[in-house]
Parts: sequence; structure tokens; C-alpha cells
Amino acid sequence: MSKFWSDSIRSLEPYVPGEQPAIAGIIKLNTNENPYPPSPAALAAIRQAADEGLRLYPDPNASALKQAVADSHGLSAEHVFVGNGSDEVLAHACRALLRHTLPILFPDISYSFYPVYCNLYQIQYRQLPLNAEFEICIDDYLQANGGIVLANPNAPTGCAIGRSEIRRLLERNKDSVVVIDEAYIDFGGETVVPLVEEFDNLLVVQTLSKSRSLAGLRVGFAIGHPVLIEALERVKGSFNSYPLDRLAIVGAVAAMHDREYFETTRRQVMDSRDRLTAELANLGFHVLPSQANFLFARHAQHDAGRLLELLRQRKILVRHFRKPRIDQFLRISVGTDVQCQALVDALKEILADAGSV
Amino acid sequence: MSKFWSDSIRSLEPYVPGEQPAIAGIIKLNTNENPYPPSPAALAAIRQAADEGLRLYPDPNASALKQAVADSHGLSAEHVFVGNGSDEVLAHACRALLRHTLPILFPDISYSFYPVYCNLYQIQYRQLPLNAEFEICIDDYLQANGGIVLANPNAPTGCAIGRSEIRRLLERNKDSVVVIDEAYIDFGGETVVPLVEEFDNLLVVQTLSKSRSLAGLRVGFAIGHPVLIEALERVKGSFNSYPLDRLAIVGAVAAMHDREYFETTRRQVMDSRDRLTAELANLGFHVLPSQANFLFARHAQHDAGRLLELLRQRKILVRHFRKPRIDQFLRISVGTDVQCQALVDALKEILADAGSV
Repeated sequence: MSKFWSDSIRSLEPYVPGEQPAIAGIIKLNTNENPYPPSPAALAAIRQAADEGLRLYPDPNASALKQAVADSHGLSAEHVFVGNGSDEVLAHACRALLRHTLPILFPDISYSFYPVYCNLYQIQYRQLPLNAEFEICIDDYLQANGGIVLANPNAPTGCAIGRSEIRRLLERNKDSVVVIDEAYIDFGGETVVPLVEEFDNLLVVQTLSKSRSLAGLRVGFAIGHPVLIEALERVKGSFNSYPLDRLAIVGAVAAMHDREYFETTRRQVMDSRDRLTAELANLGFHVLPSQANFLFARHAQHDAGRLLELLRQRKILVRHFRKPRIDQFLRISVGTDVQCQALVDALKEILADAGSV
Repeated sequence: MSKFWSDSIRSLEPYVPGEQPAIAGIIKLNTNENPYPPSPAALAAIRQAADEGLRLYPDPNASALKQAVADSHGLSAEHVFVGNGSDEVLAHACRALLRHTLPILFPDISYSFYPVYCNLYQIQYRQLPLNAEFEICIDDYLQANGGIVLANPNAPTGCAIGRSEIRRLLERNKDSVVVIDEAYIDFGGETVVPLVEEFDNLLVVQTLSKSRSLAGLRVGFAIGHPVLIEALERVKGSFNSYPLDRLAIVGAVAAMHDREYFETTRRQVMDSRDRLTAELANLGFHVLPSQANFLFARHAQHDAGRLLELLRQRKILVRHFRKPRIDQFLRISVGTDVQCQALVDALKEILADAGSV
């Protein structure tokens, strides 16, 4: 605390990202990174751009990237906004589109950055409980609101809602913006990007951090009606003219163009996820049905915090949230098959030591 | 306008950055970029980091970069905040430290992003006029305020204030934060970084975009008392956990370490600036005394807007601000000696055509 701080920052509680440890030989299944490297074309484009051109500012509009994103979804570039990771895109969306008199709505269990943004921008919000199966119930959201934010698939549960359900919401919620955070959509969910031309209040947010293996490059985007995009541009232009550096722009463009690599690696992740789900179930875990690149699982007999510790001793990192309703779950990112097998082997050992397998 | 926009964004007027044209063979003296390439060590570090590691998130704390910045100023890393360009750092400083009941103060002629931030965060401000020589008068700032922001050297004038003047301000302004924006400090100004251990309300902001030739990489930083840095971290952590990508971190670290290259190139820019100042004076320009990598100059007989157009026809870009008091000035970034000579030759032609030389 200090008299120099702006009053409202005293109550801020920043988002806490998963650990990025520098431990040799660790198996890192705690922050939902893709186990496969980025597209070789993206890496080549970045290396090529690491030249004297870096003395110049980037294109403030990142037009080449907007076009690449638009092309990949069969839309025009005016439907696209790009930012420094989907976190920045979501932050600008909160400031630009979700600050109204009525509270915004999002699930009680979801990406924990949402309430953080609300505190930053002094936006009122209400968190609506997931049902007993940890699913989002669209009917709960059919009430007056200043905006709705849904992660689909949801995090940290991995559970997805179908496009028809989101369409039903949009048909009955025409007076506020609906943000669908599709960070994990490419691992089996049904994107609602095809609905943006039909619903002028739909904003879809995606990232290159997960399915494009570029968490280290910080690129995210939003797709929506040009009037929504214009609102985001106004806030972006009042905050930072050049949020994407030259390397991020060229790397992201190349990654969006390399469709074949994208299809291959996301398929591998989905296949590994489905195998790992079955293995964990065999070990006595209850695993929520995941359409993401992670699993959310609890064991009937074993405390999640204790399992996390024992895995960590074996140099395997997973994530655990000390929050009501989910404090007995572990969130496990899907690794390569070798990494998944190492996790299963470690869990078998741990459970055997405890006498339950 | 749209019912979906947050009310307060209707009145936002985004900052307009200088043009980044894709015109072959252009001499680009409009956005104060460094004419020399980045440190070869920085480029090598970036190319080396363009590997499969990009699938992983960056260090959210960018600790290696904080340490490199701290080392370069003989401070500890807890005095350092880093961000996605100094624009992002300044935005967070406004939100974290300058939002109080009293208005903040800055000059009427200065970096035009300052009032834009104030509108974004709904911060009251007062702009105090530069004197007739376009200088900042410290005495004007000795009044009640919610914070003070001074660019030193100032932009677009290039005029600098000495450390003793800023010390005098700090000694008499102990109840609010003083932000000194040193984007251009390495071209001859006197940094006030040595004062941060003495004054707990001083925040100094610098960038790698100018003197380190890395405008394309988007890296800026702030130096100040750890309590001020903590405020910035709170806002940053409520906005975007990872504003600096892996490539920006390694490139910036290498650039900070390559002290010799930095000293050589900034010296070259200063020498070219001083020669260009003399040449422009010979052509009848009044040139403000610049401690930056740009000149602010007006011609007694020729309209600035017209000169800008005629230079543009000759593929030379400079910048012009259509604002009261300065609409007869051109802001000219200092290029290589070859570029400066091309500018002088073009101006000689233009003035000869007009019959005045």
C-alpha cells in the first residue's frame, strides 16, 4: 500500500498463471501448452524476420495477420481483431464491450482471469454455478445482463457446449454482447465463428497458444461484427499502438497458413487425450468429458493436493485449484504419448504405495 | 456507435502513430526509428530462440530482462518493470499511479498519447503551456496535482531539461508521482535514473525502440521505487500475464548487454543530428535545440504542410502535427548521414524551385 497508488488498485488481485519452472527433465503438464513444436514454417519465418528490419516499428494494424486469420475462417479482415495473446484481447473486450450498468454473467468455475478483468475495469459481474456435472446450463443465462462470457470448451473442466446451444442463447440475448472464449476449440469443440455474420453481438476469441503451439509468441484474436471490432480497435489504439511485434506477426501468419501441420498435431493431441482419459479411468479417476487439450480428473480415494505433491516429487507438474467444488480435481495437460505414459506410470506407483491398486 | 459499446469508449480518440508505408526506396524520417540495425547479438539471440521452445509460455516475470535492465543502471531487479513497449508501460503507470482526485499535469505540447491514456482511464488532466522557446518550465508544475508526466527530452520538440531541474521539482512535489518519460534520453539528455533511490515518487520510463534500434520488438521498461513497481505489477497481472514474448525477452537482454554497440550507434546518431541541425539552419530553418534523435524545425518562408508534401513526392517522409503553436514545424528523424544528405539535397531543390535559395 502506498499513497501513490491509484485508489482502485488496492483491491486488485492479479491472475496467477501456472508455474514456469526451470527444472531440468521436468514433464510439464500444468499450463496446457501443446507438446508439439510450432509449425516449422512459423519458425523459419521468424528467423528470417530477425534482421535489421527490427529497427522499424511493426504495422500497427497487423494487416497481414488479420488477413490470414480472416482467410482461415472465410471472412473479411474487418471481422478480425488481433492482440498480444488472447488475454489482451479479452481485456480489451471487457473494457470496450462489457462495461454497462447491468452485471455481466459468467460461470462460477471458469477461466479465473474473468473476475480479474472485471476488478481492473470496475465491471459488475455475477458468477452462475455450473450444474452437478460441471456443465454450463444455457437457461441460466437467459436473464437481464450487461454481457455474457463463456469459455467453450470451458476451463478448467474441458466440457464443451454445442453450437446449437450457443445459437439458442444468441437468439434470446440480443441486447448485450456474448463473448465465447474458444482458446481450446480446436481440440474437438464446435466453433461458433460461423455465427458471427448472423449475430452482431457475438465475439469469438481464439489464441495461437494452444492448437498452434505458440504460447511463447503471444498472439490471440477476436472475430465478430465490424462494429464490435471497431470498439476493440478504439481501446487498443488508446492503450498501445503496436501490441504485436514484427516477429509475432510473421510467425503467426505462417502458422495460420500451415493448415496441414495444424491438423496433424491437433489430431495427435486429441488421440492422446482420449487414450489418457481411458487410462486414468482405469486407475480409479473420475474424468470429466474433455474437448480440450487437458483433462480435469479427481480420484475417489486420494486427495488432489497430495497427488500433485507426489507427482511433483517425480518431476511431473500438473495443476490444482484450491477453490470450492473443484479442490479435489487435478487439471492435467495432454502431453505426448511418452509424457502421458510417464504420468500414468507415476500415478500407478503412487496409488500402489498407498495400497489402493 | 453501437448499443454494444461500453459508454465511455464513445469519446475515446485513439493515438495515431506515424505512417508505416510499404513504398520501395523510401527514406523514412517520420517515426524516430534508429537508422542503424539492432545489435547483432540481439538478432543472434532471437534466431536462436526461434525453436520448439516457443510452444511454452514465456517467463511471466521476464526476470532475465529485469535483471539486465537493473544491471545496466546499477540497481536491483525489484526497481524494474518491463512491458510491451514503453507505451504499454506508460498506460499501466496511468492506471496504477495517476488516477487520483486531482488532475495530473503535463505540457500542452508533448507526446500526444498522454491525453489518450487519460481518456481511456478517465483521469482528469491539465496541460500546461511550454514557454515561447518551447521549453518546459518547472515552476509551472509547483502546484497541487494528482501526478506529473514529463517527456525528457520532450517530444516533438527534442528539448531537454537538466537533472537539477527535475530534482528541484521532486524536492517540492512529494505527494504525487512524477513520471519522466525518457524514450529519447540516450541521445544526449541527462537521465534521472540515479534519483530513484532518493525519491520514492519518481518513475522513469525508457524504451528499446530508439537508442537500441528495436522498435519492431516492442520492449519498454520503468525504473522506480519497489512500491511503485509493485503497483505496476498489480495492473499488469490483472491485464495480461505474459506481455513479453520469448523472442522479445531474449533479444532485449542481448541488446542491453551489448553496451559497446549501443555506445557506437547512439554516438553516430548524435553526430549526424548535430551536422543536420547546422545544414538546416543554413537553409533558413529555425531548429529547436535537440537532445533527441529527431529535429523540430520550421522555415521562415515555407509552409510546413507544403514542405511535407514536396518531400513526400521525393520519397522522403517526415512528420507534421496539425496542432496549435506547432503547425509550422516539421519533425525530422535523424537518419544515416546518407539519408540526412538526401533530405538536405531535396530541401535545397524545393527551396530553389520556390525561388528562395
